[in-house]
Amino acid sequence: MKVFAGFTLGLFLIGLASFTMIQKKKIIFFGDSITQAGVNPGGYIVRIGELATKENLAAQYDFIGAGIGGNKVYDLYLRLEDDVLSKKPDIVVIYVGVNDVWHKRSYGTGTDPDKFEKFYNALIKKMQAQNIKIILCTPAAIGERTDFSNELDGDLNNYSTIIRNIASKNGLPLVDLRKAFLDYNTQYNADNKESGILTTDRVHLNEKGNQLVADEMWKTIKSLSGR
Amino acid sequence: MKVFAGFTLGLFLIGLASFTMIQKKKIIFFGDSITQAGVNPGGYIVRIGELATKENLAAQYDFIGAGIGGNKVYDLYLRLEDDVLSKKPDIVVIYVGVNDVWHKRSYGTGTDPDKFEKFYNALIKKMQAQNIKIILCTPAAIGERTDFSNELDGDLNNYSTIIRNIASKNGLPLVDLRKAFLDYNTQYNADNKESGILTTDRVHLNEKGNQLVADEMWKTIKSLSGR
Amino acid sequence: MKVFAGFTLGLFLIGLASFTMIQKKKIIFFGDSITQAGVNPGGYIVRIGELATKENLAAQYDFIGAGIGGNKVYDLYLRLEDDVLSKKPDIVVIYVGVNDVWHKRSYGTGTDPDKFEKFYNALIKKMQAQNIKIILCTPAAIGERTDFSNELDGDLNNYSTIIRNIASKNGLPLVDLRKAFLDYNTQYNADNKESGILTTDRVHLNEKGNQLVADEMWKTIKSLSGR
Amino acid sequence: MKVFAGFTLGLFLIGLASFTMIQKKKIIFFGDSITQAGVNPGGYIVRIGELATKENLAAQYDFIGAGIGGNKVYDLYLRLEDDVLSKKPDIVVIYVGVNDVWHKRSYGTGTDPDKFEKFYNALIKKMQAQNIKIILCTPAAIGERTDFSNELDGDLNNYSTIIRNIASKNGLPLVDLRKAFLDYNTQYNADNKESGILTTDRVHLNEKGNQLVADEMWKTIKSLSGR
Repeated sequence: MKVFAGFTLGLFLIGLASFTMIQKKKIIFFGDSITQAGVNPGGYIVRIGELATKENLAAQYDFIGAGIGGNKVYDLYLRLEDDVLSKKPDIVVIYVGVNDVWHKRSYGTGTDPDKFEKFYNALIKKMQAQNIKIILCTPAAIGERTDFSNELDGDLNNYSTIIRNIASKNGLPLVDLRKAFLDYNTQYNADNKESGILTTDRVHLNEKGNQLVADEMWKTIKSLSGR
Repeated sequence: MKVFAGFTLGLFLIGLASFTMIQKKKIIFFGDSITQAGVNPGGYIVRIGELATKENLAAQYDFIGAGIGGNKVYDLYLRLEDDVLSKKPDIVVIYVGVNDVWHKRSYGTGTDPDKFEKFYNALIKKMQAQNIKIILCTPAAIGERTDFSNELDGDLNNYSTIIRNIASKNGLPLVDLRKAFLDYNTQYNADNKESGILTTDRVHLNEKGNQLVADEMWKTIKSLSGR
Repeated sequence: MKVFAGFTLGLFLIGLASFTMIQKKKIIFFGDSITQAGVNPGGYIVRIGELATKENLAAQYDFIGAGIGGNKVYDLYLRLEDDVLSKKPDIVVIYVGVNDVWHKRSYGTGTDPDKFEKFYNALIKKMQAQNIKIILCTPAAIGERTDFSNELDGDLNNYSTIIRNIASKNGLPLVDLRKAFLDYNTQYNADNKESGILTTDRVHLNEKGNQLVADEMWKTIKSLSGR
Repeated sequence: MKVFAGFTLGLFLIGLASFTMIQKKKIIFFGDSITQAGVNPGGYIVRIGELATKENLAAQYDFIGAGIGGNKVYDLYLRLEDDVLSKKPDIVVIYVGVNDVWHKRSYGTGTDPDKFEKFYNALIKKMQAQNIKIILCTPAAIGERTDFSNELDGDLNNYSTIIRNIASKNGLPLVDLRKAFLDYNTQYNADNKESGILTTDRVHLNEKGNQLVADEMWKTIKSLSGR
């Protein structure tokens, strides 16, 4: 009997372990080339993993990069089913907007602000229908000058405001990278440089940029997953 | 007995009539402002209805306009479920491309050719999954000059070629409006005018333009529905 | 003797009058549609005239509008000889830059920043060769939002910085309209409106805008002409 | 006496030589990066020199390249005095237009067609005032596809038409490179390639392109200089 009981207990413990594994949170980072580079050594997603490890929380998360270079909000919408919904994540971090603004000038193929908002809302609606928790991010920078003389600052601020409003209307957590980058540059970019502070090329993240993004996102991910 | 038999026959005929009504083809015209105007008096969709009436085929078709001004291929994709799939059409005529090219210049928000193709294919895939028959159209014109000196001719030809290739790869019927408009203008626009032949303003259709589009589409709709 | 003396005095007075007339300063306002509208009733050039009248200085100035809608810096250069140099002005107020930035987006025909600077310097060089005094102005606004979310704020700030640097390198007086408009809007545009504070349509001046420009320019014109 | 006579003859011969030197025609090629590369080994200006040598006409010409990368029509106007008028050429070949069209899309800083015409006419007027003979050229290509599906074909055709009209209105010789390139490609670009036939990269000339341009220009230069 005891043996049997012990065996029962053993099964129960195994069951508990499985249960914990089922509770592991799957986090998908959904974005453009910045996110695509996030899974490279030193990338922001790798750094989030390191932060989790430091805090002994690594076992509780799967961090999955789903970034593709050149993506705009409607590209995310096109591959939402394949790259996000079908993977059944718990949390999705949407980090998009740079190309929607940038490609207006470089290729004539940016995204109108009203359509940016429409597709963004469509992303949210489809994810929420599947009970996915969503974290929104503002696009950090196209140029790091602090005097608002980066060519696309006006438009980037406009699209950031659109995202902030979506977050606030839907009660969704926001990682305001645009603000975080401006604050950091205001403090550390006294020479009003175009790049080299948090980016390598005005847009893509250097070490410090990746770390800043990782820090900001990690705080929000933890708070959203109740840890 | 005869009466009864007659009555039986009568019921049978009514049944036959109902059966025919069930077979009525629902055709959705899916596009931009040109299609939005197609349901106005004199519009190309209204004219297709008139062609059907002349040939005593009106009872066999429901013609439904689903055009929204300013739409590009990805806007069609965004509202595909609501405006097309949920309505269970038999045939969908996709008529898009002008804004994908035009908005590059006018707003910086056109569509890259590779993404144009990707979204176009996604539209087709989703409709075919629902056994919808599809008719493709090339964008007719942005300017009617016949010497290829309309500012956006090169790009419009490029996107028309993309659509022709999609049609050919998928074995889908094509209404080559771009070619039809060029042919017509070559014959009737000796003065190399920018507009006024088939369009009012280089893009939107005048009476003759609406009739030409109606004629071309009607031929293909009939052949596709086996009439 | 008295008659003779009186006659002499008369001549002397006539001489004095002529002398004053020779000293009358000719001021040319050289710019785009904003300056073209400046000579209309309520326009900023008319208002500068009114300011001069109030201070009993009207007789000392000829204020001449030389604004043409859609002009960019190179358009000014093209018509410099005909519209400025040949008229032998004492002072020229250069007020240009909005279209150099704006037309990038609206027509794809703005001006590269390095060429903006090159043509601007060429204007200055040719005028200085004729001993004309020059007043520079920064472009006031394309949109009046105060949070730097007007689409073209970044670029407009960049071109304003170029002009400020040209002024400083050449020791030329600057009317910093960009700064003046931002300051005014920060105070009076609490609702972050796009237009209606100093402009009618984000660019062109309303009554208050015309008065602000007149006030700012008048101060500099007086100081430059030693009054 | 003999010595003196000999001396006289010597002087006379020197005089004859001087006379020949004065008659040497100075030809300036005024343009953009295509012309800048024209003085490199294998470049079109070098090849024109070779053609002159072959026909024993080299001693009669000075061929001078005055091309600067990225130049548009108004850049030519800005440096007209320094790079052309001050050098007192006999003939100037104006070869411009590619960047006026191309930069609309790539940088948002192309040239409006009406201003293109205005600056082009201003170039001509200033050169003619100095009795310089002028040869006009149409811009050859931005892409070599023969089915008018190169993105900028429409606009390039439009600007070519503007140049053809200027030539015809002013009775000036035209080297219609646009037509020559299309004709050549129609014959030799059966695969509808974007580049590699006459250009290396859709715009800049390969060996065959440089030779074609040299051949076409040389014919016109000879006929204009009466040889």
